[in-house]
Amino acid sequence: MVPRYARPAMTAIWEPESKYEIWFLIEAHATQKLAELGVVPQSGAKALWDWWKTDPGIDVAAIDAKEAVLKHDVIAFLDWVAEQVGPEARFMHQGMTSSDVLDTTLAVQLTRATDLLLEDMDALLSAIKRRALEHKYTATIGRSHGIHAEPMTFGLKLAQAYAEFDRSRARLVTARAEIATCAISGAVGTFANIDPSVEEYVAQQLGLSVEPVSTQVIPRDRHAAYFAALAVVASSIERLAVEVRHLQRTEVLEAEEYFSPGQKGSSAMPHKRNPILTENLTGQARMIRSYALPAMENVALWHERDISHSSVERFIGPDATITLDFALARLTSVVDKLLVYPDRMQKNLDKMGGLVHSQRVLLALTQAGITRDNAYRLVQRNAMKVWESDGRMSLLELLKADEEVAAAMSAAELEDKFNLDYHFKHVDTIFARVFGE
Amino acid sequence: MVPRYARPAMTAIWEPESKYEIWFLIEAHATQKLAELGVVPQSGAKALWDWWKTDPGIDVAAIDAKEAVLKHDVIAFLDWVAEQVGPEARFMHQGMTSSDVLDTTLAVQLTRATDLLLEDMDALLSAIKRRALEHKYTATIGRSHGIHAEPMTFGLKLAQAYAEFDRSRARLVTARAEIATCAISGAVGTFANIDPSVEEYVAQQLGLSVEPVSTQVIPRDRHAAYFAALAVVASSIERLAVEVRHLQRTEVLEAEEYFSPGQKGSSAMPHKRNPILTENLTGQARMIRSYALPAMENVALWHERDISHSSVERFIGPDATITLDFALARLTSVVDKLLVYPDRMQKNLDKMGGLVHSQRVLLALTQAGITRDNAYRLVQRNAMKVWESDGRMSLLELLKADEEVAAAMSAAELEDKFNLDYHFKHVDTIFARVFGE
Amino acid sequence: MVPRYARPAMTAIWEPESKYEIWFLIEAHATQKLAELGVVPQSGAKALWDWWKTDPGIDVAAIDAKEAVLKHDVIAFLDWVAEQVGPEARFMHQGMTSSDVLDTTLAVQLTRATDLLLEDMDALLSAIKRRALEHKYTATIGRSHGIHAEPMTFGLKLAQAYAEFDRSRARLVTARAEIATCAISGAVGTFANIDPSVEEYVAQQLGLSVEPVSTQVIPRDRHAAYFAALAVVASSIERLAVEVRHLQRTEVLEAEEYFSPGQKGSSAMPHKRNPILTENLTGQARMIRSYALPAMENVALWHERDISHSSVERFIGPDATITLDFALARLTSVVDKLLVYPDRMQKNLDKMGGLVHSQRVLLALTQAGITRDNAYRLVQRNAMKVWESDGRMSLLELLKADEEVAAAMSAAELEDKFNLDYHFKHVDTIFARVFGE
Amino acid sequence: MVPRYARPAMTAIWEPESKYEIWFLIEAHATQKLAELGVVPQSGAKALWDWWKTDPGIDVAAIDAKEAVLKHDVIAFLDWVAEQVGPEARFMHQGMTSSDVLDTTLAVQLTRATDLLLEDMDALLSAIKRRALEHKYTATIGRSHGIHAEPMTFGLKLAQAYAEFDRSRARLVTARAEIATCAISGAVGTFANIDPSVEEYVAQQLGLSVEPVSTQVIPRDRHAAYFAALAVVASSIERLAVEVRHLQRTEVLEAEEYFSPGQKGSSAMPHKRNPILTENLTGQARMIRSYALPAMENVALWHERDISHSSVERFIGPDATITLDFALARLTSVVDKLLVYPDRMQKNLDKMGGLVHSQRVLLALTQAGITRDNAYRLVQRNAMKVWESDGRMSLLELLKADEEVAAAMSAAELEDKFNLDYHFKHVDTIFARVFGE
Repeated sequence: MVPRYARPAMTAIWEPESKYEIWFLIEAHATQKLAELGVVPQSGAKALWDWWKTDPGIDVAAIDAKEAVLKHDVIAFLDWVAEQVGPEARFMHQGMTSSDVLDTTLAVQLTRATDLLLEDMDALLSAIKRRALEHKYTATIGRSHGIHAEPMTFGLKLAQAYAEFDRSRARLVTARAEIATCAISGAVGTFANIDPSVEEYVAQQLGLSVEPVSTQVIPRDRHAAYFAALAVVASSIERLAVEVRHLQRTEVLEAEEYFSPGQKGSSAMPHKRNPILTENLTGQARMIRSYALPAMENVALWHERDISHSSVERFIGPDATITLDFALARLTSVVDKLLVYPDRMQKNLDKMGGLVHSQRVLLALTQAGITRDNAYRLVQRNAMKVWESDGRMSLLELLKADEEVAAAMSAAELEDKFNLDYHFKHVDTIFARVFGE
Repeated sequence: MVPRYARPAMTAIWEPESKYEIWFLIEAHATQKLAELGVVPQSGAKALWDWWKTDPGIDVAAIDAKEAVLKHDVIAFLDWVAEQVGPEARFMHQGMTSSDVLDTTLAVQLTRATDLLLEDMDALLSAIKRRALEHKYTATIGRSHGIHAEPMTFGLKLAQAYAEFDRSRARLVTARAEIATCAISGAVGTFANIDPSVEEYVAQQLGLSVEPVSTQVIPRDRHAAYFAALAVVASSIERLAVEVRHLQRTEVLEAEEYFSPGQKGSSAMPHKRNPILTENLTGQARMIRSYALPAMENVALWHERDISHSSVERFIGPDATITLDFALARLTSVVDKLLVYPDRMQKNLDKMGGLVHSQRVLLALTQAGITRDNAYRLVQRNAMKVWESDGRMSLLELLKADEEVAAAMSAAELEDKFNLDYHFKHVDTIFARVFGE
Repeated sequence: MVPRYARPAMTAIWEPESKYEIWFLIEAHATQKLAELGVVPQSGAKALWDWWKTDPGIDVAAIDAKEAVLKHDVIAFLDWVAEQVGPEARFMHQGMTSSDVLDTTLAVQLTRATDLLLEDMDALLSAIKRRALEHKYTATIGRSHGIHAEPMTFGLKLAQAYAEFDRSRARLVTARAEIATCAISGAVGTFANIDPSVEEYVAQQLGLSVEPVSTQVIPRDRHAAYFAALAVVASSIERLAVEVRHLQRTEVLEAEEYFSPGQKGSSAMPHKRNPILTENLTGQARMIRSYALPAMENVALWHERDISHSSVERFIGPDATITLDFALARLTSVVDKLLVYPDRMQKNLDKMGGLVHSQRVLLALTQAGITRDNAYRLVQRNAMKVWESDGRMSLLELLKADEEVAAAMSAAELEDKFNLDYHFKHVDTIFARVFGE
Repeated sequence: MVPRYARPAMTAIWEPESKYEIWFLIEAHATQKLAELGVVPQSGAKALWDWWKTDPGIDVAAIDAKEAVLKHDVIAFLDWVAEQVGPEARFMHQGMTSSDVLDTTLAVQLTRATDLLLEDMDALLSAIKRRALEHKYTATIGRSHGIHAEPMTFGLKLAQAYAEFDRSRARLVTARAEIATCAISGAVGTFANIDPSVEEYVAQQLGLSVEPVSTQVIPRDRHAAYFAALAVVASSIERLAVEVRHLQRTEVLEAEEYFSPGQKGSSAMPHKRNPILTENLTGQARMIRSYALPAMENVALWHERDISHSSVERFIGPDATITLDFALARLTSVVDKLLVYPDRMQKNLDKMGGLVHSQRVLLALTQAGITRDNAYRLVQRNAMKVWESDGRMSLLELLKADEEVAAAMSAAELEDKFNLDYHFKHVDTIFARVFGE
């Protein structure tokens, strides 16, 4: 975790306080159910909850001090709680193993983290949608291979981003379900010392599903799927970030990361406005993507469990969620405040002197009865002139002046083929598909 | 693709014949719809389907020869079809771009591949379930960290594998939906030269969804999610493969890959039966996992599209699906024919002289009124003797002979604590969760 | 391996013929040494070499047929050789294990492959150097963040590429040494049944080093380092490929992949020349990079060896070397024939109306006695006008006309600050560092 | 970075204090050289060094406060230094760009980090060597595929580990050279505003090489190679960690991570000593390995530089080096204190009733004139009995009692074939190769 790429709400999930709070909830809910089952006295559960209602706070330092002596984190925690609650606390943790607490806690942390990510995603989607509607018909050149292809609108670019992040949202929802399970099943998952109904009860209280079969640990294919989903989301962040970086290039300059009117550039050169936010996002995407790998290598634990996954998760649990949270928020801000330059888009669109319309003219000439080969020759000879003039000549004017072309199509007919609206007639259809309205 | 790790049905999907067959279907369906719309004559579509009904076969060599001249694969194909069908074929591909065909074809290939993978998965699940039921109550030692922990059953191990592959199955279903989309939307996705209803019609005919917004290409976050899902499935294959490898170790030998009774080992040593199938699967899992990465790097194509994804997909499209198909089938065979040695499992379970029951005795002594510290001391001093005897002494016998212990618990009570059934009482619950019966 | 990304010389290394040829050489050299040691008769070695001198060729199909029966590749091979050579062949393979042959063969294949890669690299370096010298003083704009920064030369761009590939070359040399070892040490590497001098002799004959300690297999950290080196080289290929893709963008167009004068674009649009070769290289780089991962996961084989690395290497051995060979050759061709447009470079350089020189003017004004704040203000107010004119105004002319500026610096002094040569005065130094001349 | 996997000396390198200290050294050395060149007054350099000699310490909070206002880290630093040093400080940073300072600083940090890693590696090598010599002739079973193969010694296992880490050491030395370069070359690397001799001087003072050609940034192929090398080293750590985990398995138990005599296990079960240190190392290896990927993706920066690498390096710079430092130290401690059980090794070696010698007997029977087929049959029929007795029968005794065998070989001759020394005769040779003595 890099502090400058971290936001407080997400970071808090990974703080010791949160962890211990979840530990308490698991232990208290389990004791509650054990009391119902008659395994421990009702007074045991009541004592825990009575104390908790006093909003006591967790003394992390005190627990850490105990752990330093006891060399066992869960025992240290239970000891500390027992000191606060008194003798009734001795019924806590009956029949449970440490992993029951640890793995279920990770599930709670990851679901909380995902809830924040889903909020981030909604904010991003909302920002993209607003800008997409704003620029629904802002003409711009579509590019394949970095080369001008055919006209489209800037709104369409954003509609594509919206659809992609809408899929990302669905992937997060699926990923959340993957890891939202509770396991309280004992040393090898047989429920030898605890009834399965305890697991069911705790799961329900924490908003989790029951892990159908665990083996001290919750199986790590779940976490692999989770971090893989985050990696895919990060890749989509990279895509939009790279788009902005391209649009902000000096020669393109169709859009820019926000730059306040009075803001000084890094030097005397007023053009020196660097897309550093989106470059920064590009790097963050690389990191989030990389975390999927060790998560996948964690799946093949030995027999019922080994603990090699644990050191991995101490890194990637916080790092992947905190960085993705930051990246989504940063991207939202970039989209929200993006400076869009429709004039420059039009200028770039016109840069080729109308060559982007050549294919339509070609088709029209064919439909006017000229053979395809001939039509190609006619368009090509005029297009080459435009190309060689570096866009200073106009394809439309040259075609009008070409006698062979003029014989087949009138000036008005030709002009019609240079109409951008031709390309925009289905924008509505696409917007309806994407935004459902 | 490594031929020895390839099966014919999956390989066939990636052969040129299949590709061209799908190209034809896309073109013919599109022409059909264009005829309905009145854009091309009905005769154009009819001619295509009439020819197709003759089951003409695809002459790959002829198309390749044309491509060598024309330097364009789709044009070469259209040319060849036109030669077969005659002049009516000229209405094919009206208003379409090559990518409309190529990307939709990839969608068809990947959905077909996934259908095979789902069949493979069903076979694997079926094999695991059969063996799980067979060994529902076969006692075995559960291990954490490679160290004996508590008793469980071999059926439970397999139930966990079943649940994991059942999740894998769900992931494949989700992954299939991710990539099962059709795009026929033109050079930058604006439908400038083709009506969106053509895309809808072709999608429906091919069993695909419509891509809500494409940009010449289908967005590659879909494919990233697809290959990531395969990578997670591969990681689960690795887990079960590693389990078999562990069980087959000379010192453990609780199960073995099938070895026919008359089969000679690699040498004079009859013990030399190596788990080479599961080692092989371990390596294959590494490969399938690795393909997720370039798939994710493919997401951030430049602007509306660049073609950097294409060379990646020429590798991973076939390699990931063919290898996973092979791996699932191989794993199914391993599970199906796995030699399981319950006697050896029991022997290993007994290896520690009953130490695996020490925790239960400890608990029972506490419940019998002895303080936890004292109970721990009593168990520990007998357990240490068993341990030092390397399992030749019996913890039960020592406890019975320990006066302090005997004062608290009768021999019968002690024996009860060494009963394996205690650990198996919830096997039914877990099986019901996993197998739903 | 994708056939279209494969060249014959590299592919041949991975063909069965080559493999069997190397197997024979290892067996024959080993037999030679065993004969010297008196372990087998001299006639045994002589018979093998006599046969080999007849240039007999390898009958792969015959060996494959034997393997289908014998289920062991090395035994099938030995059998076939024995049939060709006669009874004297029975002394082959004395005291050896299959892995001795297999692992040493992989070493020979990888060293041969690396030798080809080094040739490729030399060709690439030569092409880059030629173009760098050609464009040593071709002025172009240097860009940071995709934004114009300061002038440089196109030769400097290429000099940087040269230096980077020169490092790549060194990495290949190091990588070659990593994997160029021979192991003939028996089932667990103890030389129980064969003298270490055999290993030494065979190593020497094949141009390999002796593996100091092997354990049936050559340790896989060597191969991990090898494929990691290839992955880094691929990343540098991606860098230069991305540079070309950027330069070819419609709005930049400072260079293009070769396009023959008469060549038709993909459509009527003459501007539609796509950088498909470098896009293709970008994807190949992703693949080669991805192969480093399973190679690293191969390192932790169990105990003295397991065979999980083998399936991985059947993929990445050929795929990484064949694809890198192809990529290096393709990149060489791209560089060699790259269309470079110095006029366009100059035009882009001038695009900002001289703003790229603003920093130098600022410095000069400071040196002329104006405070830094004032100097900044003077430059900024003129620079903003140029910026707002979209480069149609000239910073130099505005500064000359600015009275406050003119008071501090004469027109000639100002003009001197707009001299590109100022930026090029150390080009010679850098070229001397890079090209050593 | 996970605090519990971090050691102070390595962590300190990545603290702001260290960074600012290096920044100062770069600025001061550069000013020194600029003074020599007459670009700035000697007094400027003198003032800096005079202040530095007072051992002033860096006030990180004060610099941070300035950065919060100035939004530029290097300017904030220069400002703060200027406040401490006085007006003479204004000559600092003349003609330099921020990246000159930042990239050279990273080089210094990484070289310092690597120096610590090399010390760690020396300690590890020393520990392995000590244990290898201690167990040079400790007999143990060699295993392939997890199955008993042939006898070897525990010292040989460690000799292999030594050789592997000796290669790791060489890789770290190479990696250090990769990134130990200094760049002070200006905005696009042309030295437009600073003489190349400044770079040379600063490089020399800091123990770095000169970067032959930089482009504001030091090229990132260097860093990719660096982190790839660390990833390979981590993979070797995983290998040795996995070996220990295997040896500590309940059924194998030939070695254990240190466990103090009085230490309580995690429960009443004295056998429950888990190899958690090496499991932990396994997970750390996965993380360090994963960092190689984003480092490779960083190589293809756009044109002369973009800043996407920066966010990646804020993670992996500290995380990879800190975690590897910790892992090497932890592994050293594991090796150093490893509990080795030669008796158990011998017991496991004998587990198969002498079957590990069957191959030697087979060979001896052949040499005694029995055909290979017959010899195989004789060995096999006795070996099968041993195998079926689960090692309770002795192959040697059965062979002695087999009349056909006895006819060919005397009891003494047979016994000789069961002599472990046969396998150990070249241990000296291997040790000489590995340890050079």
